[in-house]
Amino acid sequence: VRDAAAREDEHDATGVSESVVDVQPQLVETVVDALDADDGARVRDTIAPLHDADLADLLQNLGSEHRRKLVRVIRSDFRPDVLAELDETIREDVIAELGILETAAAVADMDTDDALLVIADLGEDDKKAVLQAMPLSDRTLIEQQLTYAEFSAGRLMQRELVALPGFWTIGETIDYLRRAAESESASLPGDFYDLFVIDPVHRPMGVVPLSRLLTRGRITPLSEIMNTEMKVITTSTDQEDVAFLFRQRNLTSAPVVDDGGRLVGVITIDDVVDVIDQEHEDDLMHLGGVGTDDFYRRSIGTAGSRFPWLAVNLGTAFLASLVIAMFETTIEKVVALAVLMPIVASMGGNAGTQTLTVAVRALATKELTTANALRTVGKESLVGLFNGVLFAAITGIIAWLWFGSSKLALVLALAMIANLLVAGLSGATIPLLLHRLKVDPAVSSAVFLTTVTDVIGFFAFLGLATLLLF
Amino acid sequence: VRDAAAREDEHDATGVSESVVDVQPQLVETVVDALDADDGARVRDTIAPLHDADLADLLQNLGSEHRRKLVRVIRSDFRPDVLAELDETIREDVIAELGILETAAAVADMDTDDALLVIADLGEDDKKAVLQAMPLSDRTLIEQQLTYAEFSAGRLMQRELVALPGFWTIGETIDYLRRAAESESASLPGDFYDLFVIDPVHRPMGVVPLSRLLTRGRITPLSEIMNTEMKVITTSTDQEDVAFLFRQRNLTSAPVVDDGGRLVGVITIDDVVDVIDQEHEDDLMHLGGVGTDDFYRRSIGTAGSRFPWLAVNLGTAFLASLVIAMFETTIEKVVALAVLMPIVASMGGNAGTQTLTVAVRALATKELTTANALRTVGKESLVGLFNGVLFAAITGIIAWLWFGSSKLALVLALAMIANLLVAGLSGATIPLLLHRLKVDPAVSSAVFLTTVTDVIGFFAFLGLATLLLF
Repeated sequence: VRDAAAREDEHDATGVSESVVDVQPQLVETVVDALDADDGARVRDTIAPLHDADLADLLQNLGSEHRRKLVRVIRSDFRPDVLAELDETIREDVIAELGILETAAAVADMDTDDALLVIADLGEDDKKAVLQAMPLSDRTLIEQQLTYAEFSAGRLMQRELVALPGFWTIGETIDYLRRAAESESASLPGDFYDLFVIDPVHRPMGVVPLSRLLTRGRITPLSEIMNTEMKVITTSTDQEDVAFLFRQRNLTSAPVVDDGGRLVGVITIDDVVDVIDQEHEDDLMHLGGVGTDDFYRRSIGTAGSRFPWLAVNLGTAFLASLVIAMFETTIEKVVALAVLMPIVASMGGNAGTQTLTVAVRALATKELTTANALRTVGKESLVGLFNGVLFAAITGIIAWLWFGSSKLALVLALAMIANLLVAGLSGATIPLLLHRLKVDPAVSSAVFLTTVTDVIGFFAFLGLATLLLF
Repeated sequence: VRDAAAREDEHDATGVSESVVDVQPQLVETVVDALDADDGARVRDTIAPLHDADLADLLQNLGSEHRRKLVRVIRSDFRPDVLAELDETIREDVIAELGILETAAAVADMDTDDALLVIADLGEDDKKAVLQAMPLSDRTLIEQQLTYAEFSAGRLMQRELVALPGFWTIGETIDYLRRAAESESASLPGDFYDLFVIDPVHRPMGVVPLSRLLTRGRITPLSEIMNTEMKVITTSTDQEDVAFLFRQRNLTSAPVVDDGGRLVGVITIDDVVDVIDQEHEDDLMHLGGVGTDDFYRRSIGTAGSRFPWLAVNLGTAFLASLVIAMFETTIEKVVALAVLMPIVASMGGNAGTQTLTVAVRALATKELTTANALRTVGKESLVGLFNGVLFAAITGIIAWLWFGSSKLALVLALAMIANLLVAGLSGATIPLLLHRLKVDPAVSSAVFLTTVTDVIGFFAFLGLATLLLF
């Protein structure tokens, strides 16, 4: 076995280093310096060798002043695909600086699915203005696709595809493709990986991976080499269901049909990757109490968007306070209760969050279903009980040593068992109930859970203390 | 606009319904009934039309007794690819029931990347036994690939690929592919989407999407139509960096080279989707305080795996208790403090978690870098301050109305501002510091954060009370 450093050296020698995935602070500095010096030529020279994605990265890493300045410098030869790579918030900024005409020109140069993405995010007025400034053919295509619901397969699909009748032979197909590529009028997709076989009324019959055209003889008809086990998606299918289907069936592409079952587009796995990323980000952010990713938003906007969740949390915190207030006289007599009471609530909250996270994830991946819901709730309650007993012993002993009261220790231990059992039970039940009520469990489960674990935690501990200590 | 129900009907009419993505409790019931009645024929009939992924789903939805029974029924004609679709925990179960010989036979029938996945998860003894029971050619291939580090590009890549010299023409290439497909000895990949152009020492020079072979004349050399802007990955590259590269550059496939720069495999985007899913799951689980997804584990195992995190949390909870204990005499005099003190800590914890979630996510997507770290910390502190002032006003007023003490209200308000400011500051700083120390911020940030917001929350509130109330 050779050591890592030696291997590392050799990667560099072959010109392949890990640096591709790092962002370069030096680059940001160089560009900022050049912008500050109003040296447009140096700015353009610096960014010329950058890939579109890296230029988008650079724009995102600049402060808003420098960003606007950079856009002004590169405005005249703005690279269309940079727009598609930008975060939504930053894109709005860039488009505002770029202006309607330049944006329209950029969008007209993009693939329809990317163009759609950019246009769909614009405000109504900007959207109209950009569409009006576009060439008619592009505009019609995009306006048509905008009629599909947001987050639907219709929005996600690419319109350009190759669809041929099943009786065509491989030879005829290759000849047709060569002719079509030469004629300007036929609209072949850029690079494509599958072609579709359709029946006379344009319904998809099967899919032919291109490698099959290259590994069979010219006289083979398409119907003989097509894969009929394809999954057909309708334009109105939700994009999350599309993503689920792609993962479940390991698809690389799937045909999209309209209400009449006619082939109108194709969704490829690279489009689905964006959906998967978005889905995951949503789950993570919602569980963390953040509406949507606000990394690029300004402070005031960010504070505003996070306010509602904190306000809801304040409500539940006051609810917990009301529970504590019920036992003011008990606390006055034994102030050690005030010292220990956050422990019970905190452990319940954490144990509940563990269960909640697993349940929300399992619901998202459709692993948690009505078929195993009851078993899951039972298991999670049991897990809560196990850990409740363990931590009851641990905290009981610590409290006994600390305050020298076996009764206080007993109260703490019993409250711990009760709250961790409830945490497991409600950590599994709450997301299941919300899911059944068609509410996204990632968004609202956490607040219900903390309410339960706080209220039960304080109530069990202080209530048992009132019963057992006097 | 037509109504959803009408559209829904038509989907059904075209045979395309949403039901594909639902799991069927009826199916589970039918199979359980048949298993209980020991009716092997009915079991086999029921599962015969199922897709591999659906059969895997069914196995995951059964209790462990029924699962084992089902495996025994279908053991003789077990479908290899079902193994690859199973969750790790369930797969171990199934393999244990299946036995070494059947597992080896199944694995030998799978694609190398899927086979590798199954074998890599086996215990050392099982791994050896399964490998020994496999045909020599498959075994060598897999043993070779097992020498690459876990989670590296070498493990992820597929060995089967088409690599040709750049001077070959399209015509020669197609003729070669047709001959190779007919001869049994050549090992063409199943369906493939790109072929690679190599130099005489087998280094990748470019990639040719198959569509380009079909849209150009037969005499065009490959070097003329190849895409040289491909990203080359080394076998030792971490799979998370591979995933980042694919997303950043919208790749559909990338060549993998060994230490000498020679082409040894190809990674395609469908392999990357699994990595992306795994990455996201890890982030989510770690933030939720769960080691790895334990949805299919037994209660005892699950409780054990969640214990460490809860134990750490118990430590921080006792730390908070120590802070409260410092102010026992203050609380004894004004018991309202015990009622209100969880509010400050809870709001701080929630505001901090919001910041933390955004920061951890931005670090994972490499949006948060050294270039904008300082700006991010500044922004998050400001966001904390904004919401701190808002919630200081709200909670101050409520406390005033509740307890009729303006001084108590002032104490609560000031503590709220302090804790939300600290929450924003530490919610951004902690993950950045951990990231710099090469510790996964998703795993450990939350516990540091709660410690800070609890300790500061209680200390600020009770300390200010001691200073200002008497």
